[in-house]
Amino acid sequence: MRADGRRADELRPVTITRGWLDAAEGSVLVEFGRTRVLCAASFTDSVPRWRKGSGEGWVTAEYAMLPRSTSTRSDRESVKGRIGGRTHEISRLIGRSLRAVIDVKALGENTIVLDCDVLQADGGTRTAAITGAYVALADAVAWGQRSGAVRSTKPVLRDSVSAVSVGIIDGTPMLDLPYVEDVRAETDMNVVVTGSGQFVEVQGTAEQAPFDRRELDVLLDLALAGTTELSRVQAEALAGGTTA
Amino acid sequence: MRADGRRADELRPVTITRGWLDAAEGSVLVEFGRTRVLCAASFTDSVPRWRKGSGEGWVTAEYAMLPRSTSTRSDRESVKGRIGGRTHEISRLIGRSLRAVIDVKALGENTIVLDCDVLQADGGTRTAAITGAYVALADAVAWGQRSGAVRSTKPVLRDSVSAVSVGIIDGTPMLDLPYVEDVRAETDMNVVVTGSGQFVEVQGTAEQAPFDRRELDVLLDLALAGTTELSRVQAEALAGGTTA
Amino acid sequence: MRADGRRADELRPVTITRGWLDAAEGSVLVEFGRTRVLCAASFTDSVPRWRKGSGEGWVTAEYAMLPRSTSTRSDRESVKGRIGGRTHEISRLIGRSLRAVIDVKALGENTIVLDCDVLQADGGTRTAAITGAYVALADAVAWGQRSGAVRSTKPVLRDSVSAVSVGIIDGTPMLDLPYVEDVRAETDMNVVVTGSGQFVEVQGTAEQAPFDRRELDVLLDLALAGTTELSRVQAEALAGGTTA
Amino acid sequence: MRADGRRADELRPVTITRGWLDAAEGSVLVEFGRTRVLCAASFTDSVPRWRKGSGEGWVTAEYAMLPRSTSTRSDRESVKGRIGGRTHEISRLIGRSLRAVIDVKALGENTIVLDCDVLQADGGTRTAAITGAYVALADAVAWGQRSGAVRSTKPVLRDSVSAVSVGIIDGTPMLDLPYVEDVRAETDMNVVVTGSGQFVEVQGTAEQAPFDRRELDVLLDLALAGTTELSRVQAEALAGGTTA
Amino acid sequence: MRADGRRADELRPVTITRGWLDAAEGSVLVEFGRTRVLCAASFTDSVPRWRKGSGEGWVTAEYAMLPRSTSTRSDRESVKGRIGGRTHEISRLIGRSLRAVIDVKALGENTIVLDCDVLQADGGTRTAAITGAYVALADAVAWGQRSGAVRSTKPVLRDSVSAVSVGIIDGTPMLDLPYVEDVRAETDMNVVVTGSGQFVEVQGTAEQAPFDRRELDVLLDLALAGTTELSRVQAEALAGGTTA
Amino acid sequence: MRADGRRADELRPVTITRGWLDAAEGSVLVEFGRTRVLCAASFTDSVPRWRKGSGEGWVTAEYAMLPRSTSTRSDRESVKGRIGGRTHEISRLIGRSLRAVIDVKALGENTIVLDCDVLQADGGTRTAAITGAYVALADAVAWGQRSGAVRSTKPVLRDSVSAVSVGIIDGTPMLDLPYVEDVRAETDMNVVVTGSGQFVEVQGTAEQAPFDRRELDVLLDLALAGTTELSRVQAEALAGGTTA
Repeated sequence: MRADGRRADELRPVTITRGWLDAAEGSVLVEFGRTRVLCAASFTDSVPRWRKGSGEGWVTAEYAMLPRSTSTRSDRESVKGRIGGRTHEISRLIGRSLRAVIDVKALGENTIVLDCDVLQADGGTRTAAITGAYVALADAVAWGQRSGAVRSTKPVLRDSVSAVSVGIIDGTPMLDLPYVEDVRAETDMNVVVTGSGQFVEVQGTAEQAPFDRRELDVLLDLALAGTTELSRVQAEALAGGTTA
Repeated sequence: MRADGRRADELRPVTITRGWLDAAEGSVLVEFGRTRVLCAASFTDSVPRWRKGSGEGWVTAEYAMLPRSTSTRSDRESVKGRIGGRTHEISRLIGRSLRAVIDVKALGENTIVLDCDVLQADGGTRTAAITGAYVALADAVAWGQRSGAVRSTKPVLRDSVSAVSVGIIDGTPMLDLPYVEDVRAETDMNVVVTGSGQFVEVQGTAEQAPFDRRELDVLLDLALAGTTELSRVQAEALAGGTTA
Repeated sequence: MRADGRRADELRPVTITRGWLDAAEGSVLVEFGRTRVLCAASFTDSVPRWRKGSGEGWVTAEYAMLPRSTSTRSDRESVKGRIGGRTHEISRLIGRSLRAVIDVKALGENTIVLDCDVLQADGGTRTAAITGAYVALADAVAWGQRSGAVRSTKPVLRDSVSAVSVGIIDGTPMLDLPYVEDVRAETDMNVVVTGSGQFVEVQGTAEQAPFDRRELDVLLDLALAGTTELSRVQAEALAGGTTA
Repeated sequence: MRADGRRADELRPVTITRGWLDAAEGSVLVEFGRTRVLCAASFTDSVPRWRKGSGEGWVTAEYAMLPRSTSTRSDRESVKGRIGGRTHEISRLIGRSLRAVIDVKALGENTIVLDCDVLQADGGTRTAAITGAYVALADAVAWGQRSGAVRSTKPVLRDSVSAVSVGIIDGTPMLDLPYVEDVRAETDMNVVVTGSGQFVEVQGTAEQAPFDRRELDVLLDLALAGTTELSRVQAEALAGGTTA
Repeated sequence: MRADGRRADELRPVTITRGWLDAAEGSVLVEFGRTRVLCAASFTDSVPRWRKGSGEGWVTAEYAMLPRSTSTRSDRESVKGRIGGRTHEISRLIGRSLRAVIDVKALGENTIVLDCDVLQADGGTRTAAITGAYVALADAVAWGQRSGAVRSTKPVLRDSVSAVSVGIIDGTPMLDLPYVEDVRAETDMNVVVTGSGQFVEVQGTAEQAPFDRRELDVLLDLALAGTTELSRVQAEALAGGTTA
Repeated sequence: MRADGRRADELRPVTITRGWLDAAEGSVLVEFGRTRVLCAASFTDSVPRWRKGSGEGWVTAEYAMLPRSTSTRSDRESVKGRIGGRTHEISRLIGRSLRAVIDVKALGENTIVLDCDVLQADGGTRTAAITGAYVALADAVAWGQRSGAVRSTKPVLRDSVSAVSVGIIDGTPMLDLPYVEDVRAETDMNVVVTGSGQFVEVQGTAEQAPFDRRELDVLLDLALAGTTELSRVQAEALAGGTTA
């Protein structure tokens, strides 16, 4: 039993609230336990210069944490005048994960930017961000189709995508780590998986001790169970009616 | 009658939700109509170097807008690598407004930083931020007293403080402008007032046409009526029990 | 009587020297007592991209202090790599003040940039800058008309504009504060007024104690008396012949 | 058969030249085919402030590419004034990989910085950097022991560490991808492994198509074969006599 | 005869006005024809960290141009967020030139910063800056001696220093080039010389055509004649009474 | 006799290795003793915006040092977020030196960027960089001619160019200073000379003591002897066959 009463293979309570912002073409407040991320999708009917004339669209993401999302206050990156390595890394991860399920040809020369701002951080912010951003992206794609900016009749989204963290704590593999578990994990892995169960990203890090093949296998099993559940929650949220 | 059905001298619905964050020593989600600002107060038991040994505390503020808080997406200041003039200006205004009601001697050598992040912007973000930040500040001061970091038995807060915007639109003075009114205002004024009705800041700007003394007087009357109501809402919120 | 022998409602000696630079289309060395600001107006016959095709011109301003304009040396903002909040704030104030009296349609698609560099600072640098910049602006507008870049026959300047600081020191309202008074002021206000006596900006700040409506009224009276005198000095300077 | 004549499971020619720099406490020119990375280890007998008094040392890394290491010239990050996300990401990866095999207690309060500068890039720069940096690190540790700065008699390095890229190209899993293969890979993985065959990092990315569990397994097998060979090359290089 | 009526070996009118600023420990407005540079010396009784405990002082300089000192407006380096190469180069040149005549031991652990701000630029700004900065430095040294911060009784200044530009225009070597000559010069040289006629810096650049040994010799002769005259003007200015 | 056994007027062993990089249109590893600089020439068939339509090409250079090229590690300029004055100065010097021998009309609207990265620094890095960069430039020009991008049949290079340092140490003028001599030099001069023996740049600095006309003459003689030898080494390297 874990500190919050969960079994080792159990997700925290996950909620996805669509339409949290009035103006964004897609927006979601996603919660993994106490972790709370606001994902806003902004649709524009043009593409970056290097993509002009290609007939293809573009999806990108920016991740950031509010200064007091964490237990002690962090300085703002805008005040420091530079973006840190971790922020860069996670922004790139979210962008790649979403692009893995987008058909850029079907999207046409449109751009969707996903802003994932962590309002409260309790572990798993990047996985919550990916999971929520997919839903905001789906809403923005639908907006683009309704508005006529997306002209193709082919599906723009080839699949859904969600993500979860797994780790080994005191020798036990566990799913969806909150902050208190994350800092103690010997090994920590973030896994991004499509709705049909294929891997998009596998990022495993030996925080304290290198891990062997068998441990890797157990962690991947755990992660796949978690993303199966997350993709069900996403589908339910998207089934809950359009947002306008 | 205004577009949203209000009278010229009527505030938008104002709500103040305390304890919105788990970790912050004070935190408030403040809403002025659709404008939504998250105010987090971070208490630390030390002061900036230039204040060490003075026996006095310090209160400061940082304001920022999420990229998609506005109707079209704005670039992040962290990505641009510099903070814009408007952001600087509002951060400084919030800090000065709060310091006007703080007794820094009674606070002792402690610092409280107020982070005001605009989640959704529909006009009046700086006035909502000041109004909400005061409540978060009061909670953080109480936290400091409970924790023993604030040792003085004198009141740390000399008064409350709130703020509201007023403007002249098509010749009519109006209270608490949403975005659609703000952009049309000939004259625009932000007024910061203590609970006892004294001015802390008066910032009037002729956006389109210079204004005369009589117009200034009418705007100030309207603002004082608004802040009287806001200080009542603040008191009610603070009467609603401690947050932990 | 004040430290420098002035009455409470008396300006410091004000001098405006036109044509201080050879190349600028308008240039003024303005002095309010020992405060000395070089205002240079640069005229270009084009507008920023976002204004192209509008038929309207643009006026903007940049304010800065030389490192040793103050009693102790300040670091250069170019060396620090970023512009401080105060600099941003004052640059924006000067720009807004000048735009309040410019008819951008009559200016046509031309831009005038006002550089206000403080050579020596003894309080009131922003108000001196606005007062001097107006005269440099008038010279640059005349230059544009002579050169043919401004084609409209309508007046480009709808009015003149000047500014002055007022404050309450030991309970006494005073006009045009030098540095020694400024740091002691309980309340400090910068007021920008047109030649015809209308307000363009009113920026009052309770530095040490909130102020009431009656104090505000007295300060505004004092400011209007000061700007009436300043607009007379501006007119005299401009009557002193063209500069070439 | 691949374009360069290798089998799918074959490394490019790998050479490790120790002592390439006169001054560095450890330095290596590592080559994976045409990829050429200069790894310099700088030993200092102190630690960052946040580590002082802990009795523990620190190892960190910085990665960069020379502007013309690539087929077309890239702008310098120093000229752009900011470090890109990819650079940050790889620097962090190298640092984590080396820390996985360092006993910071045995290192004592000393710091070793690894600078990995890519002189020529032909795919696999990060894996070459990790592989070469380990050897430079070992030399710097030995330097610290000889100089007396490292006082512990326990081994400072718990194991060796190397890295290799693997990917699936046209359905075929391949080891150690040069640039021409890298850009065509459907899936791309960088794997960091200790000398004893434990995983330190597994970073798999679906560049063009999500991958399944079976493909992941094949890629991991290939990677382990590659790192086994690399750790042999490292051992040989280190056996080749001390460098001074 | 030159455009401004001077002979080839004649300086422009040079004026040095001491005490131009109230607060600076030394300040000079130096004019070489229409070139006008404000040189302010700031004395502080401490040294940079790397110099602490050495018993030696430090002299450094910062050069900058006001945006409209030139015929067309240049963007501010503070707004661009970075200092250009030319600015860096000239700042370093001024600092080195002044340090060449300072006895840092006699100065003791004090720092003098020379700010050289070009108010109007018409060629020769760096040479005017060095020539004026020396006088401001002399005043600041005297201030330090009067105030007791400089305790040594040995002379702090070993010699005076001044600078002048020379160049070859249409085959004719000329002294002290204004802007119109500078842009046409085939070869351009800045020479810094002590009062006793020794070289401190010789910086010759073939702007359009490489130059031979004989041309170099003629230019050096011309420069020495110019600096002899400049050092006389400096001595006269310094003889004109103390400034307070 | 000097520490490294050379006579006062003797160069260190100089080697120029062409074609060190696979992709660059010209590339050279140049060594002056232990100083080792990688010079890469990048050819592009376009020019900066301000040069478009002029029919003329452009040559520019960027100089940088690897962090551990020096005896103790220096922080990266990319990490500091700004380029230092010395780097700027040397980059500009190299660019000017190469442009002195280029016929920009014959080059046509093409740009060649020279990246000079110091891999190991032992004094004279800027003179080695100029000497090596000329050879890389010659290879890039030849590449442009072979590829057809350079269409003129006139010679693009009017002459060769090389550079050397000279200095006075303990009263003795010496050629080509390594680091240990450089730090002790009373006077230090970098001289850039064409193959036909004309001066391009003369930069003499009194590091510790001003120098007189006679010393200057001796140093120039020594430098000319050095560059005569260097231009012979360049010619030999270029005679060694094309590189591809």
